[in-house]
Amino acid sequence: MQVAISDPDYQARVRRAFDGQPFMHFIGAEMAELSPGACEIRLPWRAELTQHDGFFHGGVVGAIADNACGFASYTAAAADQSILTVEYKLNLVSPGVGAALAARGRIVKPGRRLVIAQADVYALKDGREKLVATSLSTLMLLNPSERGERA
Amino acid sequence: MQVAISDPDYQARVRRAFDGQPFMHFIGAEMAELSPGACEIRLPWRAELTQHDGFFHGGVVGAIADNACGFASYTAAAADQSILTVEYKLNLVSPGVGAALAARGRIVKPGRRLVIAQADVYALKDGREKLVATSLSTLMLLNPSERGERA
Amino acid sequence: MQVAISDPDYQARVRRAFDGQPFMHFIGAEMAELSPGACEIRLPWRAELTQHDGFFHGGVVGAIADNACGFASYTAAAADQSILTVEYKLNLVSPGVGAALAARGRIVKPGRRLVIAQADVYALKDGREKLVATSLSTLMLLNPSERGERA
Amino acid sequence: MQVAISDPDYQARVRRAFDGQPFMHFIGAEMAELSPGACEIRLPWRAELTQHDGFFHGGVVGAIADNACGFASYTAAAADQSILTVEYKLNLVSPGVGAALAARGRIVKPGRRLVIAQADVYALKDGREKLVATSLSTLMLLNPSERGERA
Repeated sequence: MQVAISDPDYQARVRRAFDGQPFMHFIGAEMAELSPGACEIRLPWRAELTQHDGFFHGGVVGAIADNACGFASYTAAAADQSILTVEYKLNLVSPGVGAALAARGRIVKPGRRLVIAQADVYALKDGREKLVATSLSTLMLLNPSERGERA
Repeated sequence: MQVAISDPDYQARVRRAFDGQPFMHFIGAEMAELSPGACEIRLPWRAELTQHDGFFHGGVVGAIADNACGFASYTAAAADQSILTVEYKLNLVSPGVGAALAARGRIVKPGRRLVIAQADVYALKDGREKLVATSLSTLMLLNPSERGERA
Repeated sequence: MQVAISDPDYQARVRRAFDGQPFMHFIGAEMAELSPGACEIRLPWRAELTQHDGFFHGGVVGAIADNACGFASYTAAAADQSILTVEYKLNLVSPGVGAALAARGRIVKPGRRLVIAQADVYALKDGREKLVATSLSTLMLLNPSERGERA
Repeated sequence: MQVAISDPDYQARVRRAFDGQPFMHFIGAEMAELSPGACEIRLPWRAELTQHDGFFHGGVVGAIADNACGFASYTAAAADQSILTVEYKLNLVSPGVGAALAARGRIVKPGRRLVIAQADVYALKDGREKLVATSLSTLMLLNPSERGERA
């Protein structure tokens, strides 16, 4: 959907927020794409990110799906707002087998206070993409005075 | 709920499965408790597991909530069955602030094929516990002939 | 959980809201119990509420689960606040077979703005109860100035 | 997504199943569209379907979203299979204001056993459509020998 962006510097603001998350560095995730209301996070395969069978761990899939929705939604925030995930639901639909994962998040419904977003996670293997998971999230924008609390 | 266990060696089987997950080692998670239909995963705080504010990253919270449901449910599997997460939904209700997280999963409804489980994640700080997240999951038991596929 | 109630007249206020919903009358639902942070909705069986097999329709189960969370949460509102469901997730775990359904909702985590609630729906048959569905919901309290909009 | 259909008579089979649900008749829902992996359910406004403000009740929105996913998924069943909803998650994003609702369901990921589907519900008003809700569902196909049980 076409999303109105109020902050002309959203690119720098959102990428700074991504870079400020130690956990994203820890697992090796990168922000591959960022546009109004949309975001793609890439995650190369590493043995540390797997479950017993060498596939990407479901917890890793969920983490980047959640973050893809979060950063997609954060593009629509005002310059001084922060954002938090209220909840998300994730369906894991096939094993995470491949050289990398790509989590693509997008805003489904922007709001003054709540943002609804959706992400699809794909496994990239031999030049092809396969759907691994799909998610639906609710996020909340917080004004400066509300930072640190949850509503 | 009282859950019937068919595998007398479920403790060894489930703990072996947990130990076989590189991602759980990577983040430093431990299986603290395991009983029929229930499981607790502990995760000590480390800077690598945080978001921008030094709190546990939501993706980490989701990963151990998902796993707590998975291993709680896996106690009810037959000796030769494997298990996979079909989907989960997670509400993040307060920031993950503390020395450790404890994710407590339990079976809500066992089934021959599908298991419904629930997890609460608490932050442990100064001897007190605070609810950080609550989740509701659907898992699927797979017979040996079905391993490797998704249903 | 122990929920603080700010409105001494919450009983009358919440029951009035329930009575003001034509759809609840239409299906024949009654508010059976109401206490701080908790609510039970009863729904006697009628042929009109069924799916092809004579069991309660899943849509009916979902509707009273959603409402049980809504009215449980509404007990914690201020006298002049309204409430809306942001989202809910429902697992249907056994067929809705019986003389009536009972949906029991309760607040899991109250909040100034968002309330997280949970409901279990039971089928009542021959003096026994069987779990039919379990749900997890996010609700939002609205101040008078916000009424009519969504956040 | 392109969905393979094994039953050449899926149109008659799925429409018969819809017509066999008393609850859909009771609220006045109609199956407006049906194609491989997709379905639209229409519901004209009636006072009995509202909440306190004259808008469509959230429970009604959820019921037709759930059914739109169910019938979309049922197109992909074999001729002798039945289907049940395992779980769904619904975000209500704007009030259900209008002359009718249209719930459009589609298969996101077909499976031999589990089907993942998604539905959007729109309010139709003055020739325009407005998104009211979006959902994500898990459904299960049952073979004749499994009918009546839940997995």
